[in-house]
Amino acid sequence: MLITLLTDFGDKDPYVGIMKGVIYGLNPAVQLVDLTHQVMPQAVREGAFLLYNAYPYFPPGTVHLAVVDPGVGTSRKGICIQVPGLGYFVGPDNGLFSYILDKFPGAAVREITNPSFQRPTVSPTFHGRDIFAPTAARLALGHPWEETGPLLEKDSPVLLPDLWPHWTETPQGRRISGEIIHVDHFGTLVTNLPQTAFETVSPEALQNARLEIAGQYQLQGIRRTYGESREGEIIALFGSSGFLEIARVNGQAARPGRANETPPTWLGLNVTLNLKS
Amino acid sequence: MLITLLTDFGDKDPYVGIMKGVIYGLNPAVQLVDLTHQVMPQAVREGAFLLYNAYPYFPPGTVHLAVVDPGVGTSRKGICIQVPGLGYFVGPDNGLFSYILDKFPGAAVREITNPSFQRPTVSPTFHGRDIFAPTAARLALGHPWEETGPLLEKDSPVLLPDLWPHWTETPQGRRISGEIIHVDHFGTLVTNLPQTAFETVSPEALQNARLEIAGQYQLQGIRRTYGESREGEIIALFGSSGFLEIARVNGQAARPGRANETPPTWLGLNVTLNLKS
Amino acid sequence: MLITLLTDFGDKDPYVGIMKGVIYGLNPAVQLVDLTHQVMPQAVREGAFLLYNAYPYFPPGTVHLAVVDPGVGTSRKGICIQVPGLGYFVGPDNGLFSYILDKFPGAAVREITNPSFQRPTVSPTFHGRDIFAPTAARLALGHPWEETGPLLEKDSPVLLPDLWPHWTETPQGRRISGEIIHVDHFGTLVTNLPQTAFETVSPEALQNARLEIAGQYQLQGIRRTYGESREGEIIALFGSSGFLEIARVNGQAARPGRANETPPTWLGLNVTLNLKS
Repeated sequence: MLITLLTDFGDKDPYVGIMKGVIYGLNPAVQLVDLTHQVMPQAVREGAFLLYNAYPYFPPGTVHLAVVDPGVGTSRKGICIQVPGLGYFVGPDNGLFSYILDKFPGAAVREITNPSFQRPTVSPTFHGRDIFAPTAARLALGHPWEETGPLLEKDSPVLLPDLWPHWTETPQGRRISGEIIHVDHFGTLVTNLPQTAFETVSPEALQNARLEIAGQYQLQGIRRTYGESREGEIIALFGSSGFLEIARVNGQAARPGRANETPPTWLGLNVTLNLKS
Repeated sequence: MLITLLTDFGDKDPYVGIMKGVIYGLNPAVQLVDLTHQVMPQAVREGAFLLYNAYPYFPPGTVHLAVVDPGVGTSRKGICIQVPGLGYFVGPDNGLFSYILDKFPGAAVREITNPSFQRPTVSPTFHGRDIFAPTAARLALGHPWEETGPLLEKDSPVLLPDLWPHWTETPQGRRISGEIIHVDHFGTLVTNLPQTAFETVSPEALQNARLEIAGQYQLQGIRRTYGESREGEIIALFGSSGFLEIARVNGQAARPGRANETPPTWLGLNVTLNLKS
Repeated sequence: MLITLLTDFGDKDPYVGIMKGVIYGLNPAVQLVDLTHQVMPQAVREGAFLLYNAYPYFPPGTVHLAVVDPGVGTSRKGICIQVPGLGYFVGPDNGLFSYILDKFPGAAVREITNPSFQRPTVSPTFHGRDIFAPTAARLALGHPWEETGPLLEKDSPVLLPDLWPHWTETPQGRRISGEIIHVDHFGTLVTNLPQTAFETVSPEALQNARLEIAGQYQLQGIRRTYGESREGEIIALFGSSGFLEIARVNGQAARPGRANETPPTWLGLNVTLNLKS
């Protein structure tokens, strides 16, 4: 069986290794895969988005353990989601699984309350180690999900607002408003505008679209590939994960060249796409 | 069986992967867990501290392989520690296992001299690959620890001084002197002042304590949680690993705001806590 | 069986985790080892060099999966190399395996064309996930390499120029011209000048050699060890991987101290070593 791990713990501390020690102590035969531990600190929405991008590539029965948890130690619940035919998701009830719950209406959610799915002592600051790791380890062992705790009502789990961009009809055409949801390793700004939503939009309309990233960039047209562009140019295109990206050709879009400017916090910046009618 | 790895090798080079190749070549069924490879270069004390924080979460029999090794190529020994009921520790004899030896007086230490626990050729610069990885692989295979080499006298292994803070009685009250021993992923300064040492100190005394981080910060009082504080504030509290930490709320304590200042090397800075009598 | 992974994907995105999900979905019992995912973006030559440094330490039959792939989506081929007695190399045909092909004239290369070694849908931007991961997973399962696709002519695979430094005889002595091919975790500049090429050069000649790193450093003499040098000094010596390195003692050679200077892109800088006759 397979467990994936996604956190904002970084790589300077042994926190992720400690969670793996807890898992292997309960389930010596499991395989572990790191998705990323470089989610921006406490960026629940970015974590939710990256998990949504990664889960389709794992075999049925995989347990996805995710910890981006600004509310650890408060009364927020720990939850465990079962998606029939897909697998399990384990972590805090703070919206981190919003995209999964949005995608799979048949998913069912339980609060983790059974002490046998937790470490004997639970610290107020590290539920990843004390609750989520043991729960993931036991689910991957085949312990029944039904025993983790009580079933939650469908509308109980926390959901993040504005998972998807808003479409507005204006006299000048359609306006699509979303946001920057992830900055990738190459400094490319990834938005929550999915390519699938533009399937009925003509190539010409995409070529004539105007794109604005709040106060930072104004672009004309969505490109098909990197091939058509010049070194250093800022361009917009649909990336390999299926979302609109703003990239600097052979450079970092997330690093503007203006002198003496404090670099913006890119996550959460508004993105507006105008399609002429 | 399980082997953990802790080094200062970082992630740009294939050094850690090479050690894993050596291990899997000898022991194909072993499971490997990275604790961290981002120990500050040659910071033996930080490595010792992080290992001390991580080991309790691994199952009995785990082999902990640690390489922070400024003296590689000199005459410093390679050692292998057996802690009955816990497991093994393998690495250089330079103090990296000080906290383990301090904690477990029943531990026994051998110098690694048996060539069958080493690669046929040992380079003067990469004992992690040529000595420590093969030793860890063979111990995890069940090869007897007694064969690694001669037993060392109890007082032979190198121990770092000042593992724990010093307590002094002054006319104004007690003064506790320790140091910054780790800067975590969130820029939080972690000290070697353990929470357990303050169990007999009253909550009021902690609330009235004065804390000084040499030339950088002066703080009043130790908080219980982050919840009581303002964004950007510098606070002191006992963290999830059980040590006193200095944190900036939703920010990095390790990055002072003063202009034109060279950021200090945080590791090793003195920390003084004054408890009024 | 063992699969290693080397990419320029970094650690902020789940791309590497996604490739591992694809691999485990096909081959649940495989062991995975990360060599590095911090190759400089699109630095094929650096990737080729790091792979060349790492492969000797893996057991026979290991599959090395490498993706540094600026040409993804163009007509560049995907290839799979068999080195008898050693293992397999899987990735783009862009020179990434130049050092391997240079080292092993007996290696044979196939283009990956068989759809059963690929995912059902192949995206134009992520062949690591859709072609190279499934091919590596199936080879590690024992699926015959002969079925991956047609054999390529010996001179078909792309080879990088100037893998090794050039030697020139001048009236003043021999001149060896190479380049910076990797900057390691410690900021040390690693060149493509192998120690083995200097076996017939006398220790005196090495001690009197003049070394120039284009516009950055001029050094006198190649040292034997770090031990002979002062803190902060820039020195040249043959490192643990067997290549000439330029290091700052307890510092970063890749960070010059000159004020207001844009730091150079170190990769590719010329390195010239003059041996007096």
